[in-house]
Amino acid sequence: MTTFDINQYRITEEPFYQAQVNEVALYEAAYAARLPVMLKGPTGCGKSRFVEHMAWKLGKPLITVACNEDMTASDLVGRYLLDANGTRWIDGPLTLAARYGAICYLDEVVEARQDTTVVIHPLTDHRRNLPLDKKGELVTAHPDFQLVISYNPGYQSLMKDLKQSTKQRFAAMEFDYASADVEAGIVEKETGVDAGLAAQLVRIAVTARNLKGHGLDEGISTRLLVYAATLIKQGIPAADACRMALVRPITDDADIRDTLDHAIDAIFG
Amino acid sequence: MTTFDINQYRITEEPFYQAQVNEVALYEAAYAARLPVMLKGPTGCGKSRFVEHMAWKLGKPLITVACNEDMTASDLVGRYLLDANGTRWIDGPLTLAARYGAICYLDEVVEARQDTTVVIHPLTDHRRNLPLDKKGELVTAHPDFQLVISYNPGYQSLMKDLKQSTKQRFAAMEFDYASADVEAGIVEKETGVDAGLAAQLVRIAVTARNLKGHGLDEGISTRLLVYAATLIKQGIPAADACRMALVRPITDDADIRDTLDHAIDAIFG
Amino acid sequence: MTTFDINQYRITEEPFYQAQVNEVALYEAAYAARLPVMLKGPTGCGKSRFVEHMAWKLGKPLITVACNEDMTASDLVGRYLLDANGTRWIDGPLTLAARYGAICYLDEVVEARQDTTVVIHPLTDHRRNLPLDKKGELVTAHPDFQLVISYNPGYQSLMKDLKQSTKQRFAAMEFDYASADVEAGIVEKETGVDAGLAAQLVRIAVTARNLKGHGLDEGISTRLLVYAATLIKQGIPAADACRMALVRPITDDADIRDTLDHAIDAIFG
Amino acid sequence: MTTFDINQYRITEEPFYQAQVNEVALYEAAYAARLPVMLKGPTGCGKSRFVEHMAWKLGKPLITVACNEDMTASDLVGRYLLDANGTRWIDGPLTLAARYGAICYLDEVVEARQDTTVVIHPLTDHRRNLPLDKKGELVTAHPDFQLVISYNPGYQSLMKDLKQSTKQRFAAMEFDYASADVEAGIVEKETGVDAGLAAQLVRIAVTARNLKGHGLDEGISTRLLVYAATLIKQGIPAADACRMALVRPITDDADIRDTLDHAIDAIFG
Amino acid sequence: MTTFDINQYRITEEPFYQAQVNEVALYEAAYAARLPVMLKGPTGCGKSRFVEHMAWKLGKPLITVACNEDMTASDLVGRYLLDANGTRWIDGPLTLAARYGAICYLDEVVEARQDTTVVIHPLTDHRRNLPLDKKGELVTAHPDFQLVISYNPGYQSLMKDLKQSTKQRFAAMEFDYASADVEAGIVEKETGVDAGLAAQLVRIAVTARNLKGHGLDEGISTRLLVYAATLIKQGIPAADACRMALVRPITDDADIRDTLDHAIDAIFG
Amino acid sequence: MTTFDINQYRITEEPFYQAQVNEVALYEAAYAARLPVMLKGPTGCGKSRFVEHMAWKLGKPLITVACNEDMTASDLVGRYLLDANGTRWIDGPLTLAARYGAICYLDEVVEARQDTTVVIHPLTDHRRNLPLDKKGELVTAHPDFQLVISYNPGYQSLMKDLKQSTKQRFAAMEFDYASADVEAGIVEKETGVDAGLAAQLVRIAVTARNLKGHGLDEGISTRLLVYAATLIKQGIPAADACRMALVRPITDDADIRDTLDHAIDAIFG
Repeated sequence: MTTFDINQYRITEEPFYQAQVNEVALYEAAYAARLPVMLKGPTGCGKSRFVEHMAWKLGKPLITVACNEDMTASDLVGRYLLDANGTRWIDGPLTLAARYGAICYLDEVVEARQDTTVVIHPLTDHRRNLPLDKKGELVTAHPDFQLVISYNPGYQSLMKDLKQSTKQRFAAMEFDYASADVEAGIVEKETGVDAGLAAQLVRIAVTARNLKGHGLDEGISTRLLVYAATLIKQGIPAADACRMALVRPITDDADIRDTLDHAIDAIFG
Repeated sequence: MTTFDINQYRITEEPFYQAQVNEVALYEAAYAARLPVMLKGPTGCGKSRFVEHMAWKLGKPLITVACNEDMTASDLVGRYLLDANGTRWIDGPLTLAARYGAICYLDEVVEARQDTTVVIHPLTDHRRNLPLDKKGELVTAHPDFQLVISYNPGYQSLMKDLKQSTKQRFAAMEFDYASADVEAGIVEKETGVDAGLAAQLVRIAVTARNLKGHGLDEGISTRLLVYAATLIKQGIPAADACRMALVRPITDDADIRDTLDHAIDAIFG
Repeated sequence: MTTFDINQYRITEEPFYQAQVNEVALYEAAYAARLPVMLKGPTGCGKSRFVEHMAWKLGKPLITVACNEDMTASDLVGRYLLDANGTRWIDGPLTLAARYGAICYLDEVVEARQDTTVVIHPLTDHRRNLPLDKKGELVTAHPDFQLVISYNPGYQSLMKDLKQSTKQRFAAMEFDYASADVEAGIVEKETGVDAGLAAQLVRIAVTARNLKGHGLDEGISTRLLVYAATLIKQGIPAADACRMALVRPITDDADIRDTLDHAIDAIFG
Repeated sequence: MTTFDINQYRITEEPFYQAQVNEVALYEAAYAARLPVMLKGPTGCGKSRFVEHMAWKLGKPLITVACNEDMTASDLVGRYLLDANGTRWIDGPLTLAARYGAICYLDEVVEARQDTTVVIHPLTDHRRNLPLDKKGELVTAHPDFQLVISYNPGYQSLMKDLKQSTKQRFAAMEFDYASADVEAGIVEKETGVDAGLAAQLVRIAVTARNLKGHGLDEGISTRLLVYAATLIKQGIPAADACRMALVRPITDDADIRDTLDHAIDAIFG
Repeated sequence: MTTFDINQYRITEEPFYQAQVNEVALYEAAYAARLPVMLKGPTGCGKSRFVEHMAWKLGKPLITVACNEDMTASDLVGRYLLDANGTRWIDGPLTLAARYGAICYLDEVVEARQDTTVVIHPLTDHRRNLPLDKKGELVTAHPDFQLVISYNPGYQSLMKDLKQSTKQRFAAMEFDYASADVEAGIVEKETGVDAGLAAQLVRIAVTARNLKGHGLDEGISTRLLVYAATLIKQGIPAADACRMALVRPITDDADIRDTLDHAIDAIFG
Repeated sequence: MTTFDINQYRITEEPFYQAQVNEVALYEAAYAARLPVMLKGPTGCGKSRFVEHMAWKLGKPLITVACNEDMTASDLVGRYLLDANGTRWIDGPLTLAARYGAICYLDEVVEARQDTTVVIHPLTDHRRNLPLDKKGELVTAHPDFQLVISYNPGYQSLMKDLKQSTKQRFAAMEFDYASADVEAGIVEKETGVDAGLAAQLVRIAVTARNLKGHGLDEGISTRLLVYAATLIKQGIPAADACRMALVRPITDDADIRDTLDHAIDAIFG
């Protein structure tokens, strides 16, 4: 830990990402001006995959932090640890990214406490610095540094939302589930199932997504389609695989479960 | 503690498990693809026993964590401890499992705080890694590592549920109490009582399970049937043993208690 | 503290206990199979005395922990302390009991936070072990180890109750106040007052217990009767002793106080 | 601090205390049997003074702890402190009293959190010991040790009350304000004012005490009468002294203040 | 920090204070008897200035503590700090005042948590000592020590008030804004503006104070008048100075702001 | 960190600031008298930019602290850290500013806990000092020190507001968005777009600001206009840039989003 190696955060293999509209160009323009970027969209629609793809494309290291309500500013910025020679400062992931020039991706930032979101302010305006108050150091961001956050608008409650003074520091991009064709292509490519099966799985997902707000909090993500196809490739009958990967994880409600099971039987029965 | 021995977490004797349908095949397929698995079902229906059985069958170490609302991400991931030479990092159970290739079983994960559930995200997607932010290390999961969680759908309240972005990372399997024949067989095998007595005990359990939602929060688990049979083997009269093992633990309500006592008297009186 | 002596927890003199029905046989059977036991009953009816008596009778050490809402899992399991040579692990009372083969009695366990109650789970099923996550050790319970908990059903609120997954790990025994004759015998034996006075005191207690739920949260315990008899033996007039030991401690309500004072005057006036 | 001197807690001068009924005899009988004692009564009626007087009379050291809602069990029992040679255990006031044979007086115990009140349980029954769980020591109480608690019944809310299992460990004594003659005698003796002035001050107090529950939470305590007399002895006009010592401290309500000011003017105007 | 110098807390220059009635004599009498004193009154009416003036007049050091809801008893009493040779005790401000004979002024004591207010009890009765439980020391107060608290009755809510058992330990003095003449004199003396301007500023303050309870929580304090006069002396037009110093700080309400702005224009327009 | 260099907080290049009325003169007068200043106004209207400009103009260092609800008094004042030779005191940003003569800017101070806001009191009255209670030091402020706070009146809820005793320590200045001409000039100057495009962007902002309180919490800040112009300079079509920079960051509401998108199309479509 005496020397920190930012290269462990470089992405060496191209992450598969199927572009949908102009999102790559928009992100590249934002990165060129080092504008902070907010990625908005439902669970599992590919926001995290997109930022990994862009980090790979731009050749920059990516430091991802899964935010949560127990995370403190110190978890992002760093803290003193006790050492044989007294205390030693350990940079947190945000400080590492700022100091060494990574893209810092705060996933589901709205889950974090306010001190986390406030701590990013000076990195997101003309100052581009990060005061480490406890260390008495003012870190000037590396020219390559950029801040990216994600959030899921459907999740926010009255109690939990980003402050306006935080939101107004970001350019924002909206994401949604891929189109049926694109999504089937992803399932095929990731699992090796044939096009017909992939299309059948996507049809089940479309059914479930129409139930969102009518008993389902979220639709079936592309990841779960990949799970189902994977189980089928392992030899599990398609209907069993779909029940296990597409239905049981997302609902405890007997009616919703039966509706989805019928949809599966109609396709694979 | 200088060298950690993962072998202490290997299961050397076959845990008794009576398969019911295709759950063993489903789990084996999920493990083959290292899909994260969620086990759903009521208290005492055998979820923990199943995962122990599968760990034994697959020959993998099993690290079990009983989740609770006071558990923090550090309890899972690890923390620094003060040593004669300063601080020393101690891997938590999740990190041990990821590093040394165990199945990590988070029992009743919904009880934990959000930071616990969010911390498992990077281990449950294509990344299969675990960032130890406080240590500045990115642990890549061992090829044998798999994550399993359990949860009891009847328990969840509006305040406590898994986030959709967590649920959508798991393939899910539903469990329920064993059929009467299977359950009587378990009681016989575990305690050595004869088949007739085992069947009588199961009949009491079936009565109690029908009261679930009508004054009882949960039915009588197979474990309590084993307790009752054990007490009878120790020489306690059957009705006394049933009152002590099957009724007093699960209810403080006088009406429910009398109903169950009458059912016992009808069978053993 | 370098060597822990479990013998300090042995009970060398027989604690007085007046058996009422078959509770000694039931407990012995449960201990023989090492079943975890739950003692249920109102305040001061003798649950703690019973477990002490049984520990003495079985010749096992007894480690008692008075649970409370501020108790953490670490208070039970143990923690690291800083030493001249760095940190040193100190076993908590539950770990001591498991390691050295004591009966561990968690008094009023429902008062504790959930992490306390969850931590006992692996000690109460077929595993009979206790994972010390912070120490990386898996303690296998000593063959003599048994877990006993007490709780007072009248106390539980909607907010505070044992989880079903905890309750279903115990065989349960119900306790209540002793019969009038038995109780008078206890007062006589413990204080040396004559049988007539003991009976008079018990009559006051019976009056108060009938007020339970009608202005009194709990009745007068046997312990308070012993207090009253003790004060009388010290030369305090019986009515004054009863007011001081039986009435003032249990109520602040003027009407209830007057009712009980009149009952005392009717008997001793 | 290497050697603890219990003698600093001995009371060398007789604290003035004017006995009212048989409270000294009752306390002596309770102490003779080492019964735990609860002192009940309104603010400022002399409970603390009484226990000091009894400690002096019995020739025992007195350790007083002012309880509060932020007090933890460790504040009573003790804790480890870091030393040049590692950690060193420091006994808390309750442990000191138990170990060295003092009367331990927990003032307003109901303010403390539950872990404080539960920690005294084993010291208040036949065990008379105190387990120091963190130290692994079981302190047997010194033969002179006694526990005394105070509480003010008018203060308790639904949220804050002693548990029945705590209350039933104490013999209880009720206190109230002294009679007018006794109280005037106290004011005379403590301040040196003449009997007439003392009687006038007491008349104001009686007026205020009649307002208790009608706009005043508590009446004027004897201590405030002593304050007023003291200010008068310093040359402050009687009416000004009474406003400053008897009225302004206890009310912010303009109507109550005027009522009391008029009572003062009627007597001293 | 090896030797503490109480003299840094002496007030070497006379703080300006304009006496209004007999408050200096009352305080001197209370100090002569070392009675604890409570200063009551609205924000900015001169309570803090008064206690500074009295400390200067009596030639005693003054230790002021601004209380707040996050302050703990340790913040007042002291704590152990880790040193090269282990832990070292650091007296808190209350302990310093008691030990070295200062007046200790707890400003807005009602903001503090209960443990703060309870900790002062033994210093405010005949004991005049302060138990340092964590250090095992009983500090006897220096003969010069006195405790003074302030509080603003208009602020107290149902949730936040001093306990009666705390209030009844103090003699109390009420403060209010100075009369118009006195206040104008203060503004003149502190800023050097002429009498006419000072009187005009006071007229605006009087207007605002009449709005208290009708849209304003508090009136304009003398301090803000001094600010306005200071800005005018710096060359700012009077109306602009008044808007900046008298109106914008105390209200965000457009109607109240306009009302006050009109009052300013009527006087300076 | 052995020697602290205040010069790192000097602003070496003139921050662009377009004065609107007399705010520079008002601030200069307040600074000349070292009056504490409160800057009021909506998010993104230029408060932080203004204080940076003034610090540059006055040639004083500026220490900015982004306040948040998890910030403690110690975060501002300082704390002890463990060192090879024991503990070492580290000044917090407020202490540094007071000691070395910087302007200390507490951004969004109302977010902080009360102990933060109370800790500034002695620095904001005639005392101009800062007691470091834990260190036993009384820091006298450097003659150049000044305290500035910002707050956004539209944000305050009933639960979160500055205490009157804090507000009345500041002279206050109100800020609002720049006029259309001034704002267009800022966009031109900061991004190099032509005047026509800048004016078009400002027209969109004016539309959005009229929706404040009718579905939008805040209007579009000047910063977001600069973002939009920057993206356009990078080659992104104007309508796409506006959607990304002006609309998506500030609203999740479909109706508001469509209204703003139509406004964009009307101008750029």
